[in-house]
Amino acid sequence: MKTLSCIATAATLVALSVPAAAQFAKPEDAIKYRQSAMFIQSQHFGRIGAMVSGKAPFDAAAAAENAAIVADMSKLPWAGFMPGTDKGGNTKAKPEIWTEQAKFKETNEKLMAETAKLAAAAKTGNLDNLKTAFAATADTCKSCHDNFRNK
Amino acid sequence: MKTLSCIATAATLVALSVPAAAQFAKPEDAIKYRQSAMFIQSQHFGRIGAMVSGKAPFDAAAAAENAAIVADMSKLPWAGFMPGTDKGGNTKAKPEIWTEQAKFKETNEKLMAETAKLAAAAKTGNLDNLKTAFAATADTCKSCHDNFRNK
Repeated sequence: MKTLSCIATAATLVALSVPAAAQFAKPEDAIKYRQSAMFIQSQHFGRIGAMVSGKAPFDAAAAAENAAIVADMSKLPWAGFMPGTDKGGNTKAKPEIWTEQAKFKETNEKLMAETAKLAAAAKTGNLDNLKTAFAATADTCKSCHDNFRNK
Repeated sequence: MKTLSCIATAATLVALSVPAAAQFAKPEDAIKYRQSAMFIQSQHFGRIGAMVSGKAPFDAAAAAENAAIVADMSKLPWAGFMPGTDKGGNTKAKPEIWTEQAKFKETNEKLMAETAKLAAAAKTGNLDNLKTAFAATADTCKSCHDNFRNK
């Protein structure tokens, strides 16, 4: 949880301490940044998914380490959704990200909360706990993608 | 340092607990993964660079948070350099990564060590400490890129 809170603080501080537009040299960098964080997250989340679905053997230590990275990564993408990054690169971002900021922020926070729970569940070493937390996290991913990402 | 050791353990465990080839669905994913981690790292390292060079005002808290993310990110890319990922995507990886594995591993470890020192230096809140550690880290980046990355 130390890791989580550290990175959470990092993301918040970075977001607060520098004007958003100054954080990235150009909109394409912001888009690439948020996509990079989500790609890394998806890779580690997918490894947990393979264990949860039985496609890979359950390895409690690997699950815990993957979940810790998923939780860390969940803090990063949001700074990349600064105004002016609705177009550019190969973004699939929907305009609703900027027209429904409160709702978007709520889903960001939900993802951070659910991935923190996933990391905690993985640490218990119990596959059933992991399955429950994995499903809740997956639902959060899906809900945000359904609302805020184009196909 | 807790964060660092946690992610270092994560990367090591993931690398050890799953056959390398099984970690990524396809070589392109491994390439994208390592590039994503290095891109995120470069963004945060660049923000420290701006402070160190005087292009941005020195903000000790922001420097510390950026450095923590740089150090965390330095643990991730290596799993993506698995055999069979020398071609594909838009990789600039040189063959020496695989023909000189011991030397490559040494530079990976040097980067992790230097970025840990960078994070520690940033935590002191002293700009001179940050400058010294930034320069050492930048040298390590450059040395590895010179030896192992095509222009």
